[in-house]
Amino acid sequence: MATDQVSQIGDAANRMRISAIDMTCASKSGHPSSSASAAEIVATLFFGEMRYSVAEPKHPGADRFILSKGHACPILYAAWEEAGLLTREQTLTLRKIDSDIEGHPTPRLNFIDVATGSLGQGLGYAAGMAYVGKYVDKASYRVYTLLGDGESSEGAVWEAAAFSSHYKLDNLVAIVDVNRLGQSEAAPLGHNVEIFADRFRAFGFHSIVVDGHDVSALLKAFAEAKTVKDKPTAIICKTFKGKGIKDVEDQDNWHGKPMVADSVKEIESVIRDRIKGDKPKWNIPSVVTDVKESKLDLGNIKMSSPPSYKLGDKIATRQAYGTALTKLADTTKQILAFDADTKNSTFSIEVMKKHPEQFVECFIAEQNMVSAAIGAGCRDRTIPFCSTFAAFFTRAADQIRMGAISFANVKLCGSHAGISIGEDGPSQMALEDLALFRSVPNSVVFYPSDGTSAERAVELAANIRGIVFIRTGRPALPVLYEPNEHFQVGKAKVLKNTLDGKGKGVVLIGCGVTLYEALKAHDELNSAGIKSAVIDLFTVKPIDTNTILETARAVGSNPQIITIEDHYQAGGIGEAVASAVSSSNDNIRVHSICVKDIPRSGPPDALLDMFGISAKHIIAKAKSIL
Amino acid sequence: MATDQVSQIGDAANRMRISAIDMTCASKSGHPSSSASAAEIVATLFFGEMRYSVAEPKHPGADRFILSKGHACPILYAAWEEAGLLTREQTLTLRKIDSDIEGHPTPRLNFIDVATGSLGQGLGYAAGMAYVGKYVDKASYRVYTLLGDGESSEGAVWEAAAFSSHYKLDNLVAIVDVNRLGQSEAAPLGHNVEIFADRFRAFGFHSIVVDGHDVSALLKAFAEAKTVKDKPTAIICKTFKGKGIKDVEDQDNWHGKPMVADSVKEIESVIRDRIKGDKPKWNIPSVVTDVKESKLDLGNIKMSSPPSYKLGDKIATRQAYGTALTKLADTTKQILAFDADTKNSTFSIEVMKKHPEQFVECFIAEQNMVSAAIGAGCRDRTIPFCSTFAAFFTRAADQIRMGAISFANVKLCGSHAGISIGEDGPSQMALEDLALFRSVPNSVVFYPSDGTSAERAVELAANIRGIVFIRTGRPALPVLYEPNEHFQVGKAKVLKNTLDGKGKGVVLIGCGVTLYEALKAHDELNSAGIKSAVIDLFTVKPIDTNTILETARAVGSNPQIITIEDHYQAGGIGEAVASAVSSSNDNIRVHSICVKDIPRSGPPDALLDMFGISAKHIIAKAKSIL
Repeated sequence: MATDQVSQIGDAANRMRISAIDMTCASKSGHPSSSASAAEIVATLFFGEMRYSVAEPKHPGADRFILSKGHACPILYAAWEEAGLLTREQTLTLRKIDSDIEGHPTPRLNFIDVATGSLGQGLGYAAGMAYVGKYVDKASYRVYTLLGDGESSEGAVWEAAAFSSHYKLDNLVAIVDVNRLGQSEAAPLGHNVEIFADRFRAFGFHSIVVDGHDVSALLKAFAEAKTVKDKPTAIICKTFKGKGIKDVEDQDNWHGKPMVADSVKEIESVIRDRIKGDKPKWNIPSVVTDVKESKLDLGNIKMSSPPSYKLGDKIATRQAYGTALTKLADTTKQILAFDADTKNSTFSIEVMKKHPEQFVECFIAEQNMVSAAIGAGCRDRTIPFCSTFAAFFTRAADQIRMGAISFANVKLCGSHAGISIGEDGPSQMALEDLALFRSVPNSVVFYPSDGTSAERAVELAANIRGIVFIRTGRPALPVLYEPNEHFQVGKAKVLKNTLDGKGKGVVLIGCGVTLYEALKAHDELNSAGIKSAVIDLFTVKPIDTNTILETARAVGSNPQIITIEDHYQAGGIGEAVASAVSSSNDNIRVHSICVKDIPRSGPPDALLDMFGISAKHIIAKAKSIL
Repeated sequence: MATDQVSQIGDAANRMRISAIDMTCASKSGHPSSSASAAEIVATLFFGEMRYSVAEPKHPGADRFILSKGHACPILYAAWEEAGLLTREQTLTLRKIDSDIEGHPTPRLNFIDVATGSLGQGLGYAAGMAYVGKYVDKASYRVYTLLGDGESSEGAVWEAAAFSSHYKLDNLVAIVDVNRLGQSEAAPLGHNVEIFADRFRAFGFHSIVVDGHDVSALLKAFAEAKTVKDKPTAIICKTFKGKGIKDVEDQDNWHGKPMVADSVKEIESVIRDRIKGDKPKWNIPSVVTDVKESKLDLGNIKMSSPPSYKLGDKIATRQAYGTALTKLADTTKQILAFDADTKNSTFSIEVMKKHPEQFVECFIAEQNMVSAAIGAGCRDRTIPFCSTFAAFFTRAADQIRMGAISFANVKLCGSHAGISIGEDGPSQMALEDLALFRSVPNSVVFYPSDGTSAERAVELAANIRGIVFIRTGRPALPVLYEPNEHFQVGKAKVLKNTLDGKGKGVVLIGCGVTLYEALKAHDELNSAGIKSAVIDLFTVKPIDTNTILETARAVGSNPQIITIEDHYQAGGIGEAVASAVSSSNDNIRVHSICVKDIPRSGPPDALLDMFGISAKHIIAKAKSIL
């Protein structure tokens, strides 16, 4: 029986090899050699280890599998073909423009939770899923991820490894396909599988070394992993790139190349000769039933109480973030707050204090925080919010990029934006975060200016499916809005407007600290006989083009706008506004006031002056253009 | 004598503690507790181990020291005060707006090579410097870096560790200040120093565990490190945060807080009582003399031969990068090419083939590639060029951000830009890299469209001090420029211009693959009686506002521009152009054609059509607006 199983899985691996070769021949590109090294590993997982549902791949009780080495997706598609979800006809559409069977896996396919293809991110996703499995769902589904040896050079792998052992994720198995060869040369550790085992052991894993082409060894390793308590397991597999492919196995220069057409027949014949029996009717273990359904009530998620600030009270938007998120956690158990050892600065500590089970400390490892949060949000198990200094989200820029391709539902709050943080200096000042988050496709970017609007931004964020960024600031600033003020995604607020249509006026657009500078400037300009309107954008993306255009038209003919931002020029508010009005026929000129050079340590107000974004610079600019 | 030395260094550490307390009291912010844990480590390095010149901190023969835990800079400033470079008056200007003694170290100070403050980056810098010391300078100076325990959660640390052992950097010492406490809670490994030792050992280091407040143990460890061959050394120091500070030592909630004014007198009196002798006249070992001067001949660096493409030949700009960089390496030994296992795709492999000693394989670890390159460029030892897929530079966004604050001289070439890469799919397509690199202060961004201009971009990049990005593409496209065409930073080329001033015309601006689409559109529009000009921007930043304005004015009154880019909207060419012309009085309208949604796998041409950036979309847009 066991022998039968081993033999059947071995046969499946070889059928999958052939399928991977066929589909990459059909697409004339792709990664058959990287697929071949993983054939036995993936076959053993799919036909000897994992519990899942072919009919419902995203069943909440199903074991999770993440192919971290995404370029080897032909072998994954072949596994689903072997399992009966995909037909051969479908897998042969690999990389075609009208096929969801893409060159690297994306969740356009119903059996993919997260996009991979930028290397080293799978273990972080898996860690987030395993965290949710163990601590939120408290269920017995297990999480498996397959890494390449080359991608294990990515630091994100080791951030995820440290997180996984810290949280004793014994429901997590990382498998490393040590096939020795990278894209352009041998990977740095070659076939020294013991070094991989040592590294994972030092990072708190139970490590097992096996021959990755030996199905019975793999079955035994997976069984052993299930007996390990309070530790994740790493199975280090010695494999050969192109295994089983004649004249390709263990050879250089076969990364990302389909087989030469002439050779395919012989190659496949050799593989076929190794297949011992007919394809069986697979008896895949049923999914576990100790998981509850999780339905996100998007559109109806509310804070336990509305904002309660009084006009003029001083409150930092970062503090309002912590308050609002805690009030969301009050009503919605799916809210999960992640932070990277900045919780006392971002105020996510408030969630930890009141709802410790809804808080995840990720320590100083922002890449993994974002990947784990994306993983935690899969299959609608949770609504993850991540917070750290906005500057440090640049550390996770690639994870955020991949989050968009994953259609991830994750909210990111970056505090300490801009030079207004003061004395800590430029390394802590986010001045490119709006560019980063605006360039995420389909993202929403909130930049609330006071406590009331910040709380509403957090509430709105929870109700949007997708990637949402909330930019918060360090300084405590006066509350501008009554508690019952209504905020919407993509709707700006006109706070002041003395424009009279006579042309001698200007529209001032700011957010956060610069909104207050604009309000100051408005008063002084008014005294000097210059009319102005002040717009609080609230949402930087999607930008409220209508309100901007309407307000600009109120200036009169040839209107002028001044944008003021605590951010560099590129990709910031000035460019967002310029590009929003650039195709209108109103001859609107846009003048940008922004941070133009690398800032330095100093008191916030002095920095606003020194780097040209304070009220006096707005006034000077307005006077110079009118 | 040895006892004297130990005692003197211990005294120095305590004087430095007091100085760190004083300067953070004066600035009313900063990190005295993180400084105190490192006092003996830094004092031992500066007064018992390192060879350097107080008169000339950047002497090429001096040992290098990088404070990776940058927030502990008060102790570093105190060390330079103790050494005699800074006065007490100067250190007391910490964090003042007119002082270069900033909240985190920056190279505005002559004893700082690289900015730190975003955690986990010091070891990568140090690895780059040590690589240069061992393999380029072949000199005996040594490189030391001090990490915090909290920041060792950053994956970049482990990328750098793997790199350092792979290249047998026995001139490198990483010191970890395991003070147990992070910002918001205990660090994940607490005082388990053996785990740190195991992790570094698994990553190929010689590990030594010591009491980080025991000067003689530290001296012994540094001496031992010098005897280790072919391996870097990690010295794991058990320390206490706030060590020696009454009521603060090893206590929570003292991160980033100066002492309470009332307590300072008593605190300092306790520390002062531990000082056994007078401050000695330090006898700091002389710098090594086996290093040659390295002067960069910026402005005069030339390729060994000019571009030699014929008009119409098909060549990918990524291939031209490899050719040009090799020709620079021919003439200039300081050129150093870094790649992250993509050298056969980015064509940096050409450098490796011809000048293996000028090529550094960094494997799949982009964060460390960039940090190591920044380190390698310090003190003008080399001119580092890094290449990988442009999409994967997002992985190093924070390193690039810190590079700007470091005033780093580093060139980054991102290949495989945009959807025009085709079948590999969205994970491999850079569509936000222009936003990333435009938002780097003082950066230059080249986006050459053909082989000739790509070679010139590489040559220009080598001659600019600072951060330069070169965006290259995958497809082979026709050569547009003669070999002798002259290119300048910030100068666009008008390739076609049939505008006649009558208003029925449009300016088309493209780069790379979209420039060719614009050229196609130009011909078809011409046939349809619509005049147009086609501009090749060449440099996206600084953008050539003059050429754009002049060409637009040639349309006639109320001119219109269409920008076409293989990039998302935010921070891309459309926004750069819109913002460049937004304050002009010419009523120029700018229409942006860009990638608007997450792309997918498919043939390049089909993708250009599907995602709306091909000639037919340009023509349709032109017709719709005229």
